[in-house]
Amino acid sequence: MASTPPSHGQPHRTPPQQHGHVIPRHPRLDPLADRYAARTHGMKTSEIRALFSVVSRPEVVSLAGGMPAVTALPLDAVGSMIGELVSGMGAQTLQYGSGQGDPRLRERICDVMALEGITDASPSEVVVTVGSQQGLDLVTRVFCDPGDVILAEGPSYVGALGVFQAAEARVRHVPMDDDGLIPEALEQALIECRANGDRVKFLYTVPNYHNPGGVTLSEPRRQAIVDIADRYDLLVIEDNPYGLLGFDREPMRALRARDAQRVIYLGSFSKTFSPGLRVGWVLAPLAVREKLVLATEAQVLCPPSLTQYAVARYLDTQPWREQIKLFTELYRERRDATLESLDALMPPGTTWTRPDGGFYVWLKLPNGLDSKLMQPRAVNAHVAYVPGIGFYADGSGREYMRLSYCYPEPDQIREGVRRLARVIEAELDLHSTFDAVDTGTFRAVGRPTHTAETIVGPANSDRIED
Amino acid sequence: MASTPPSHGQPHRTPPQQHGHVIPRHPRLDPLADRYAARTHGMKTSEIRALFSVVSRPEVVSLAGGMPAVTALPLDAVGSMIGELVSGMGAQTLQYGSGQGDPRLRERICDVMALEGITDASPSEVVVTVGSQQGLDLVTRVFCDPGDVILAEGPSYVGALGVFQAAEARVRHVPMDDDGLIPEALEQALIECRANGDRVKFLYTVPNYHNPGGVTLSEPRRQAIVDIADRYDLLVIEDNPYGLLGFDREPMRALRARDAQRVIYLGSFSKTFSPGLRVGWVLAPLAVREKLVLATEAQVLCPPSLTQYAVARYLDTQPWREQIKLFTELYRERRDATLESLDALMPPGTTWTRPDGGFYVWLKLPNGLDSKLMQPRAVNAHVAYVPGIGFYADGSGREYMRLSYCYPEPDQIREGVRRLARVIEAELDLHSTFDAVDTGTFRAVGRPTHTAETIVGPANSDRIED
Ligand SMILES: Cc1ncc(COP(=O)(O)O)c(C=O)c1O
Ligand SMILES: Cc1ncc(COP(=O)(O)O)c(C=O)c1O
Repeated sequence: MASTPPSHGQPHRTPPQQHGHVIPRHPRLDPLADRYAARTHGMKTSEIRALFSVVSRPEVVSLAGGMPAVTALPLDAVGSMIGELVSGMGAQTLQYGSGQGDPRLRERICDVMALEGITDASPSEVVVTVGSQQGLDLVTRVFCDPGDVILAEGPSYVGALGVFQAAEARVRHVPMDDDGLIPEALEQALIECRANGDRVKFLYTVPNYHNPGGVTLSEPRRQAIVDIADRYDLLVIEDNPYGLLGFDREPMRALRARDAQRVIYLGSFSKTFSPGLRVGWVLAPLAVREKLVLATEAQVLCPPSLTQYAVARYLDTQPWREQIKLFTELYRERRDATLESLDALMPPGTTWTRPDGGFYVWLKLPNGLDSKLMQPRAVNAHVAYVPGIGFYADGSGREYMRLSYCYPEPDQIREGVRRLARVIEAELDLHSTFDAVDTGTFRAVGRPTHTAETIVGPANSDRIED
Repeated sequence: MASTPPSHGQPHRTPPQQHGHVIPRHPRLDPLADRYAARTHGMKTSEIRALFSVVSRPEVVSLAGGMPAVTALPLDAVGSMIGELVSGMGAQTLQYGSGQGDPRLRERICDVMALEGITDASPSEVVVTVGSQQGLDLVTRVFCDPGDVILAEGPSYVGALGVFQAAEARVRHVPMDDDGLIPEALEQALIECRANGDRVKFLYTVPNYHNPGGVTLSEPRRQAIVDIADRYDLLVIEDNPYGLLGFDREPMRALRARDAQRVIYLGSFSKTFSPGLRVGWVLAPLAVREKLVLATEAQVLCPPSLTQYAVARYLDTQPWREQIKLFTELYRERRDATLESLDALMPPGTTWTRPDGGFYVWLKLPNGLDSKLMQPRAVNAHVAYVPGIGFYADGSGREYMRLSYCYPEPDQIREGVRRLARVIEAELDLHSTFDAVDTGTFRAVGRPTHTAETIVGPANSDRIED
């Protein structure tokens, strides 16, 4: 998820004053309040953006954001490469391009996907997008009417929940465990949806180094899920920004490599090269590809030409595989610092996932502590995380938090975990006099929706400032 | 509108063959055909995209595309500027940024808007978008539910019609003439919509150097339209990519400069700097601004950082006002070549607008000729234009065509007009034996919907290949 600097104005904190008169602050005083589309009423600032002003303070160790370590790139080489693209090919790089994206880049994208076993993709089936975020938005717009149901892991990527909410789709979470999405739970959800007459449009899943779960779908489960998709005629959206960022092993075989008709694949260069270029893609069967191109033309005309040429040239001329290796070594060190500190410092009853790739650890608080309520105290202690509720569409997840190790240095991570452990201990002291410590093991992580497997409307459906 | 190279595959021409088996070509054979959202069924390739394969053939003079003359930029200077941005500021330019857009760029955008009399805009009211196309899409998503009515000039920008169609809004065209949108017709439309109980969400208007009309809203009409908006509590979307590209005069005062609460302003650097960077913006009251930020975060997370830094640095360090002057001189020459050739060569009964800025001439064929039917003969004669029907949501406009003079050199333009004149004459020869030549003056241009002022559904609502 994007970790971004605080926006210029702080609309919900500072009284918005402009040109000498006070702008209405409360939605009831927004003169256009009765004019918005239905979808607009459900929109709310994400748990992550709400943290921006906090995490940018230098004294705070932020384990909240998901910013890649872009300074590990060879900036001089990339700079002169991009400069030359403009000087030498300005007529192309500064001009409008194809809505589907640059053909050369689409070829190179097929090479990248081959690393995950997708060897039958054709450039004509690829649509270049403004980050994979736009890819998911396009797919959702093409398939989902208001009220349609989307199955997604619980927890799920917060940016995906935002897309689904904007489409007025309903999300039904399917539990995960250490091995990723649980196939039996998926099948159960499908059966119940059929019984209810719900139109399930697709399963949205992040099989590798899940955000925020940190877990990876095991090999046998991959086949099981593809089999279920086949049996239930289910479309699967495979969102895979982290697949090449494994610490210990070769990339796993994508779901799309097992089923080219039912799986729509989303890829991104945000984590393997640069998020600031906003280059991602969708791989989809031709009929769907055509709809996606029409949808992206209506949305942005075409993706930026310069950034597409930059990525294609980077893949053509720079040692990008070695660079990914360098990134993963750096992230592995940070993961190690995180897990070692958690092992050493966390009070009993706290559990967490042990990622072997990607950016995130998913942590469960002991004794039913509430990560959202605890947040102000953590910020006071100069450590930030993202509360678990941001990753559920149904308001659950209060006992969880996401810790990102991608951006801070190992020493900062250790200090951040130390501060966090103290905050949790202090909370426990407050509660221990009357509650017993929860001794749940990690297998419980990711199953919080077991007791609440109802389908819920868009995430965070409260109005702003309500 | 984007003129883009032919996409890799030609999905509607070449039988799409892949990996040895034939991919279903007809939508009825698309296995997912029953799964798409309602909005998806109305999507169709635009008249402009349908021309790509044609206009890229070197023997064809294309008066079809709307590509700016980017090679008139100082490419070396821009190249080294961008290269240095990456080498020196990679931690920012290659990283995620704010969803609202870079604060420094938003400040410079306010300086640019001041040239059109918008002196009270604050950077906090600006949202940077992926071209102004995304700005229009965001505004439409924030305001429009399916079935809502949007008022728009007849003809209207084809990309806007695509956005409105994707939102399942209904478009009601309001006639234009030489002085732009006709205020009395706007008022009439509002009265009729009220009587019908239609929810009019906004007026979409391009006041300067209209695409495709080539006309500009006169000074008195600007005030009249703002007054009507006030009287009828009407929101106005002012889309203004060409405002600084006038040939003979200072920029006119924007509608937004007259009404900061009812006018949402869309701007773009596509025509004043580079479309390949895809940097545009929306200026909106704070409450709307906040909705737009939430919508763009769900759509793309944030706009590309590199391209935003590139524009901000360009405005900070390069002589951008002089560059705009250079662009307008170049376009003026091309406009002159177009109008001189049209005056000299077009058969009687043909009429056209006389733009004093921007990229386009809107031409009316004599004798009720049909520009869409004539198109294959024009292409055979090696000249391309965009048929008028692409610019109406209701299928009207067959007697019109758009000619763009922005991209070809003056000599090519003269040759193109010569070929076009011959094609029209040949058509007339075919028809003249039984029809009288239409002697309508230009005042008739832009009033074609007078006889068909019903509200119609999304443009081009036929299915692909139907
Ligand atoms: C699971 C997941 N999907 C998609 C994205 C969006 O990535 P992009 O920068 O390509 O839009 C992210 C970013 O954090 C992510 O974690
Ligand atoms: C009237 C109008 N609005 C918007 C656009 C889209 O411009 P951008 O490149 O900023 O998305 C165009 C492009 O041709 C246009 O003519």
